[in-house]
Amino acid sequence: MAQETKKNYVGIDLGGTNIKVGVLNDAGETLAYLSTPTLVERGADDATKRMAAAVHEAITKAGLKPSDVAGVGLGSPGTLDLPSGSLVRPSNLPGWDFFPIRDRLSEYSGLPVTFAHDGPAAAFAEYWVGAGKGEEGLILLTLGTGVGCGIVLNGHVWNGTHSHGGEAGHNLIDTSENARWCKCGQRGHLEAYASATGVANRTIEYVEAEFKTSLTPRVRARKRNDEVPKMVFEEAEKGDELAIRIVKETARYLSHGMISLIHTLDPSCLLLGGAMTFGGDETATGRLFLKTVEEETRSRIFLHLAERLRIAYATTGNAAGYIGAAGLARQEREESQQ
Amino acid sequence: MAQETKKNYVGIDLGGTNIKVGVLNDAGETLAYLSTPTLVERGADDATKRMAAAVHEAITKAGLKPSDVAGVGLGSPGTLDLPSGSLVRPSNLPGWDFFPIRDRLSEYSGLPVTFAHDGPAAAFAEYWVGAGKGEEGLILLTLGTGVGCGIVLNGHVWNGTHSHGGEAGHNLIDTSENARWCKCGQRGHLEAYASATGVANRTIEYVEAEFKTSLTPRVRARKRNDEVPKMVFEEAEKGDELAIRIVKETARYLSHGMISLIHTLDPSCLLLGGAMTFGGDETATGRLFLKTVEEETRSRIFLHLAERLRIAYATTGNAAGYIGAAGLARQEREESQQ
Repeated sequence: MAQETKKNYVGIDLGGTNIKVGVLNDAGETLAYLSTPTLVERGADDATKRMAAAVHEAITKAGLKPSDVAGVGLGSPGTLDLPSGSLVRPSNLPGWDFFPIRDRLSEYSGLPVTFAHDGPAAAFAEYWVGAGKGEEGLILLTLGTGVGCGIVLNGHVWNGTHSHGGEAGHNLIDTSENARWCKCGQRGHLEAYASATGVANRTIEYVEAEFKTSLTPRVRARKRNDEVPKMVFEEAEKGDELAIRIVKETARYLSHGMISLIHTLDPSCLLLGGAMTFGGDETATGRLFLKTVEEETRSRIFLHLAERLRIAYATTGNAAGYIGAAGLARQEREESQQ
Repeated sequence: MAQETKKNYVGIDLGGTNIKVGVLNDAGETLAYLSTPTLVERGADDATKRMAAAVHEAITKAGLKPSDVAGVGLGSPGTLDLPSGSLVRPSNLPGWDFFPIRDRLSEYSGLPVTFAHDGPAAAFAEYWVGAGKGEEGLILLTLGTGVGCGIVLNGHVWNGTHSHGGEAGHNLIDTSENARWCKCGQRGHLEAYASATGVANRTIEYVEAEFKTSLTPRVRARKRNDEVPKMVFEEAEKGDELAIRIVKETARYLSHGMISLIHTLDPSCLLLGGAMTFGGDETATGRLFLKTVEEETRSRIFLHLAERLRIAYATTGNAAGYIGAAGLARQEREESQQ
């Protein structure tokens, strides 16, 4: 009985803005959830103390005791070093360089901590309880401000040999001299085209070139560029031709990255998540986006794969990070007991 | 003792022209080797019977008996289906479609057969006894008539979920409208640029455009296009500027494919093999090729990876196919005994 009640896990999704904490049972169901601001500027140690407090608060909220929890999974943005449990130079957490976050969180929380990269953790959430349940080879592309990637092969996350696995957002899709700049300082990366930033930049260029579009007054009145993707989505829903064209172009750029991923890894399932899926299955624009991705991808991969590969939207949404982190903690506990 | 003497393995590299057969001991040393023509036109069953005879001939040549051999590894070109042990539509073996080659070879040879894709098998040879010994994440790119790829992660070949893993030769490196055609019927694939075919095509175009080069009389006098890459190599060794330019361009194209592979998988080691490495470490042109590949790749991947990733030439050469197949047979036997 004691062993039975211990099969709960806490998952943490550490982001530059918020820390999301979920308590999950052995079946991957969320029993309690809370979110707390990261307050990056207060530094890593302060945040880790608050994170430990949030873990205990969430456990209480779930009606559990710390002794009911077998482990904590911490999903963190990169760069990080998984074997040592340390951050390296996380670009969204300035000033937190080289902080030994895994062991410090374990110390402050009194619980064992499994350290994970957020991209692979999100993919593991889809493998555990989402749209990629039990898939032999799963790739998740998360289209947000950037393009994240996670790979799950035979039920295990592939983290790469330097904790950098799944950085397919930085795969080259344009090798020409005038390819777009990626935030990482190189040209032509998938992320420079298929992320929210890429969509915003392309849209602003169209508007500045005076294309006839209902986007013009809205884009011109923007306060920040990151408001633009939502405008594209909304105007596409209303039928604006340019907005629809931008959605379809984004799908085509994405397919260029997908084709190489598919020929490299031959996954059984490729999932798309994140805000830049234009509402996913729930909206006309989201369905058009996926349809275009499918057409552009399937027509350009080996027929044998085109006939068999599953392409779909992810289903764990914003919860992917903490669910996947909890799932990886669960996997580590279970495998250490074998 | 009986168990000890059984630790030998036969590896077969089935190609469109020749069948290579090697007998290896448990340390991966080749005890005997022979090669026999494939004679594709006689059909799969005939070839499989001759393959079984060649296995026994090679065992005898090694001074062993069939009872000294624990298993046979058969590396085959694709397309194939690993779980069922069957060929699918192997483009280099016309007329052999859907032949159940694994079980038939086992029947004819009286030995257990492990079925493998030739690209991954070659990578496994490098992991077992070659330049990638024990690497946690290994990618081998084989630059020949086409561009083959094999991936070994945590000591296991990744075959893909439809036996198509490691087809990175068909990754997109040029998404423009006028990208080069690949033999597979699509445009812009790595193979269309960095294979022998790609080098030949580009060279012929330069010569036809009347570039000043010592290649001109030789290329014009060619009987077949596949003679051209060797001419490029020989003229580059003599210092011809255009030939050197073609070598460096090939390196740059290759790096475009490598950058995406590295960001996707974060390998510890990326190896290059095959005839289109221009003599490898042994020649000035081969060294220039690798140096250019390194420069073009390292300057365009994440710094953390650029500082750590090993890029080198493969060392098992033409033996990679049968060594890797034998190694995979060994791994299957060992793991089935656990």
